[in-house]
Amino acid sequence: MPENQDNEKSIVLLSGGMDSCVCAALAAREGETAAMHISYGQRTEARELRSFHGICDRLGIEQRLAVRNELFAKIGGSALTDQTISVPLVSNNSGKPIGAHIPVTYVPFRNANLLSAAVSWAETISASRIYIGAVEQDSSGYPDCRPAFYEAFNQTISAGTKAGSEGGAITVLTPLIAMKKYEIVTLGMKLRAPFDLTWSCYSADDIACGVCESCVLRRKAFLAAGSSDPIPYTGEAIQA
Amino acid sequence: MPENQDNEKSIVLLSGGMDSCVCAALAAREGETAAMHISYGQRTEARELRSFHGICDRLGIEQRLAVRNELFAKIGGSALTDQTISVPLVSNNSGKPIGAHIPVTYVPFRNANLLSAAVSWAETISASRIYIGAVEQDSSGYPDCRPAFYEAFNQTISAGTKAGSEGGAITVLTPLIAMKKYEIVTLGMKLRAPFDLTWSCYSADDIACGVCESCVLRRKAFLAAGSSDPIPYTGEAIQA
Repeated sequence: MPENQDNEKSIVLLSGGMDSCVCAALAAREGETAAMHISYGQRTEARELRSFHGICDRLGIEQRLAVRNELFAKIGGSALTDQTISVPLVSNNSGKPIGAHIPVTYVPFRNANLLSAAVSWAETISASRIYIGAVEQDSSGYPDCRPAFYEAFNQTISAGTKAGSEGGAITVLTPLIAMKKYEIVTLGMKLRAPFDLTWSCYSADDIACGVCESCVLRRKAFLAAGSSDPIPYTGEAIQA
Repeated sequence: MPENQDNEKSIVLLSGGMDSCVCAALAAREGETAAMHISYGQRTEARELRSFHGICDRLGIEQRLAVRNELFAKIGGSALTDQTISVPLVSNNSGKPIGAHIPVTYVPFRNANLLSAAVSWAETISASRIYIGAVEQDSSGYPDCRPAFYEAFNQTISAGTKAGSEGGAITVLTPLIAMKKYEIVTLGMKLRAPFDLTWSCYSADDIACGVCESCVLRRKAFLAAGSSDPIPYTGEAIQA
């Protein structure tokens, strides 16, 4: 495993989707990397966990932490964690473009919960960087994917951790946040990110549905990048 | 239940200790209040959960959410969650005053995890205020009990929530943060906070040990306030 100059350890939050997979490949290229996965009652949690371990195996990431968070299933309020709210099909989405409003797949303040957990782990294993594959553009419009959120979160870490108060630092890095989705595919191809092991679909856990927001964003990204998506989908091919 | 002028709903993070109990009494006096408790593998978690429900019963708080967080037990690194690290006795504490350094009872970035969970719940039940009984002075010196941490966290909420992005707001309130511990006792007495139902001890769950940081801070506070602490302790009375 290559090491970066300052020999800092990183944690990557790895859901198992395409963005976090590319983020993990980036982190692993930079130096010593540990990976964290949080199951929070999302519909596809078992499938995502399998992707997490598969991606770690392929990238040579040995230090792993998989944690269950029961909060989101208990509070509901999102189509991803509440079986009474349907995952919208993009074709039935009243013609609104993806990202124009905050959709029902928004899991309230999810990324703050994930990052807080990652920072806690970073304090105990002396990691100084946390990678998260948040994407602002070409995304679903989630408020916890915006740069301002991550800037504020880094202030919070600096003020509220032992490392921050003793002169060390833990910093959240969002290397993909300003990238177009097709650029992420291109970067992943260059890094040989194991896209074949990833899982992006919000609703199915055997063959990806191809029509939820997450599938549609992914398929359009591969199409625009001129690359072939290595995972199969139910139903028809999509249009650019 | 009285209602505040603007009819806002609050959530109080209620561990079951004396500070959070007073905080809950304050919140309940202000208006509609829901209470949240998080068990995170701390030594006294079952005892604290009992206090949580007892305090809610006494204060008339009906809407409650008790959640288990398995992160801290998995990562260790704190005397509260790791059985291989002893809870220090203040009398054996090398003469260092409490709060002069970050002690081994610090649970890494705990309050960020608790607050993130509370914000997620606030988004789903449309609460706009989150009370937390953090105390800076007379405390153990935890970095996530400082005003700067809460200021940064409020920025994070504003940037990263649906409420924040749609013009609503969720705000964390820390009404006790600048108070001396004895002042919290006095305030609690005035509010008739049910101190008899609280649990502060870090290590025992039947009769409070009286000699951990948390017990010592509590006992000195009652002594300084000229009040009698309604719970029993193992061993001798303490000196002012």
